[in-house]
Amino acid sequence: MNTTEQMKLFMEPKSIALIGVTRSAGVGAFDFPGTLLNLNFSGKIYPVNPKAEQISGLKAYPHVKAIPGDIDLAVIATPRDTVPPLVQDCVEKGIKAIIVVAQGFADADEEGKALQAQIVKTAKEGGTRIIGPNTFGVANVFYNFSTTPAPPQTEKIPIGGISQTGLFFLGFPRLRFGKVIDLGNACDIGLADALAYFEDDPDIKVIVLHIEGIQEGKKFLQVAKRVARKKPVIALKGGKSETGAQAVQSHTGSLVGKDEVYEAAFNQCGIIRASDAEELEDLSLAFLRLPPMKGKRLAITSWAGATMVLAADACERYGLELPKLSPVTVSKIRQLAPPWLPIHNPIDLWASIGLIADRQSFKERMRIVLEALLAEENADAVLAIIPDFVEMFGEYGDISSLFLDAADALEHHPLIFSILGAPGRFTAKLEQNNRTVVFASPERGVRALSKLWGYSQRLEGT
Amino acid sequence: MNTTEQMKLFMEPKSIALIGVTRSAGVGAFDFPGTLLNLNFSGKIYPVNPKAEQISGLKAYPHVKAIPGDIDLAVIATPRDTVPPLVQDCVEKGIKAIIVVAQGFADADEEGKALQAQIVKTAKEGGTRIIGPNTFGVANVFYNFSTTPAPPQTEKIPIGGISQTGLFFLGFPRLRFGKVIDLGNACDIGLADALAYFEDDPDIKVIVLHIEGIQEGKKFLQVAKRVARKKPVIALKGGKSETGAQAVQSHTGSLVGKDEVYEAAFNQCGIIRASDAEELEDLSLAFLRLPPMKGKRLAITSWAGATMVLAADACERYGLELPKLSPVTVSKIRQLAPPWLPIHNPIDLWASIGLIADRQSFKERMRIVLEALLAEENADAVLAIIPDFVEMFGEYGDISSLFLDAADALEHHPLIFSILGAPGRFTAKLEQNNRTVVFASPERGVRALSKLWGYSQRLEGT
Repeated sequence: MNTTEQMKLFMEPKSIALIGVTRSAGVGAFDFPGTLLNLNFSGKIYPVNPKAEQISGLKAYPHVKAIPGDIDLAVIATPRDTVPPLVQDCVEKGIKAIIVVAQGFADADEEGKALQAQIVKTAKEGGTRIIGPNTFGVANVFYNFSTTPAPPQTEKIPIGGISQTGLFFLGFPRLRFGKVIDLGNACDIGLADALAYFEDDPDIKVIVLHIEGIQEGKKFLQVAKRVARKKPVIALKGGKSETGAQAVQSHTGSLVGKDEVYEAAFNQCGIIRASDAEELEDLSLAFLRLPPMKGKRLAITSWAGATMVLAADACERYGLELPKLSPVTVSKIRQLAPPWLPIHNPIDLWASIGLIADRQSFKERMRIVLEALLAEENADAVLAIIPDFVEMFGEYGDISSLFLDAADALEHHPLIFSILGAPGRFTAKLEQNNRTVVFASPERGVRALSKLWGYSQRLEGT
Repeated sequence: MNTTEQMKLFMEPKSIALIGVTRSAGVGAFDFPGTLLNLNFSGKIYPVNPKAEQISGLKAYPHVKAIPGDIDLAVIATPRDTVPPLVQDCVEKGIKAIIVVAQGFADADEEGKALQAQIVKTAKEGGTRIIGPNTFGVANVFYNFSTTPAPPQTEKIPIGGISQTGLFFLGFPRLRFGKVIDLGNACDIGLADALAYFEDDPDIKVIVLHIEGIQEGKKFLQVAKRVARKKPVIALKGGKSETGAQAVQSHTGSLVGKDEVYEAAFNQCGIIRASDAEELEDLSLAFLRLPPMKGKRLAITSWAGATMVLAADACERYGLELPKLSPVTVSKIRQLAPPWLPIHNPIDLWASIGLIADRQSFKERMRIVLEALLAEENADAVLAIIPDFVEMFGEYGDISSLFLDAADALEHHPLIFSILGAPGRFTAKLEQNNRTVVFASPERGVRALSKLWGYSQRLEGT
């Protein structure tokens, strides 16, 4: 069985044994059968519980070996001491994929480490692969399948996530995943295997990694190098510092190693590194929604001069440039502006629109600015810093379709936004479009564009 | 007249002349009389417009000199060419404070620079002070007064803002101001004067600066040094880079100078520097709401191990420490946890509560963790990384009063939050309390606490 076939047993099982299902749902309780039934999972579900006849309306089996027919995947969610004999049973039943949910292995004490070594040995001898322990397992929206306790989202978002913790995938205000693999302690299936699964997966366009430690470093480098040429791979590394590395020890028991080694490895493979969770979200949305950025020249327009200055600072910090506007653009904006206003990049909207326009000409003036900017041949991307016009002006401020049409029309020219003040109804409309991103600040938008440009450069170089 | 008396003419005028009020409201139109009437401004309002008899129900005067009685403040909002003779008229009328709203002076071309020099000269000769040009002027919620076109907020928030652009004050999702002074091009009244006004202002606890350039450097250093010992002064500097400095030229025409000089000056004065607008908001809310942080030891508890690791990384990055938990804390948490779980700082809530608790014990277990943490004598602050429990679990997840009571009980011990995933109703309740701050990420919370600690250290040292 090759890696992809093996991973499909985890991600698209046709039959699944659920070992250790209880009927009393705790705060974070794993109601496996309930979740799968809610999702309309199409495979066979076999709950295993010696004390129940039925669970969630499904026939329960006292033992995994009592289940008739073949089983693609077993999920074990029992206390740690009971796990080794259960893994043995699964191997004997011929199950080739096991998810071990329980905590208390390499993430805990010496006894836990020994238990983890024992299940790895048993599985290896039987040709069975394990995800976990200390994991929520996997979720696959494209297959109506999840072993996680999280309220499943149902949108087929082409972002694949690989993490060492299931809760990680819930940690974002806006970022959602179509497929996730929680490696937990990664005792067997590691980053390389999971990454290889997404390599040629047509459902997945962007891959997001949360890394605490890397197992089988050479194999990972090899796979990552190959995959990163096909799809953007964005990584957040936990345990950069000594303090963080100590915290990792009791979280997943991973060996962390020096951060410089990771930095070098990411660079070598072409993995895009996020400095924190906020940047990970920014980059994931940028790579998912925006067209490639073919150069480093950014045109900026802003409702407020102060933020225009801060955005210009960010360009220098992140290696983008503010090109001169071409004469045709200048002459288009010129007709809107008071005669004394210098017209250049960044373009100050306040003096041309905020200060001058009446309700009737507001939309028309914005249309002219936008068309001029998007036709600007000296720019590779556009950043618009604007207030939530609807919250500010009411219904006549709703010029969102202007911006959305513009974003749709662009093929190789990202158009992004940053909202001055509190986001509202106008911002929500911009966000609904899947061709643009609204960033929390101009600086964060510029930072994301700079990585988009870095990725294009790298692809050209390879 | 001393500086404070002079600034009071701008911030608390008893009578005001509004020169250049139109009746057609544009997109960003300055409806001065309307704004003041809506605010229930208690002073006298004299609209000046030779073409109108009445404006907003108020008698209009053809000329400033036609107004009977004394005038504390004149606001001039006419095209730039008309400003010099109007300033002359105001000086002749004996007005000692003028706000010049119009753009197109040092922010524009050579002609604009000359016009600006001319009004400065006229005012100086007459003993009159000017705020602007290119400004929205001032707003003072404590006095029901505003010359800005922004929808006025009415909460008496003890944050005073000084900026070179009025739109700056609208640029934040959560940060609001009780008093603002927009210096615009700062041709006369500069940072030092504005800062001095807030120095002993009992309404203002935290001062926020937006700086593009500093006028009268020595005077500023002198005042800032004095004020920063009395109240936290937080600054964001635009135009750090060469690209940004160029953008400043056409925004307020300020001379920017090298960033290293600002960095040194801020350090010397004890001004707390924010690296971007997001940090400015974080710091303003932290200094406004949190008690002082008396040491650098942070106790962290998290619902998700991964974020606990990232928060630990942030502690090392920003110079905070993760202290060992005292035995009494460990024994309190121990009773909640599975026996194999190592109990230390950061404390993993998932294994003790998420994984184990049922609905009945959820709140009780959270209470025990919180009490233990807040009594922890080895910690100077607490960071809790939690999901929006109400959005996650529904009504029984509403344990916000637990946290709010805890925050209220603490005098010298900040308790802050970061929300895993999308914020919702639970988060909103935490936010309503004015003794805690919910940060957008654990990293941002740690960064803000580190500056809180830095400020305490500085005060002790002086």
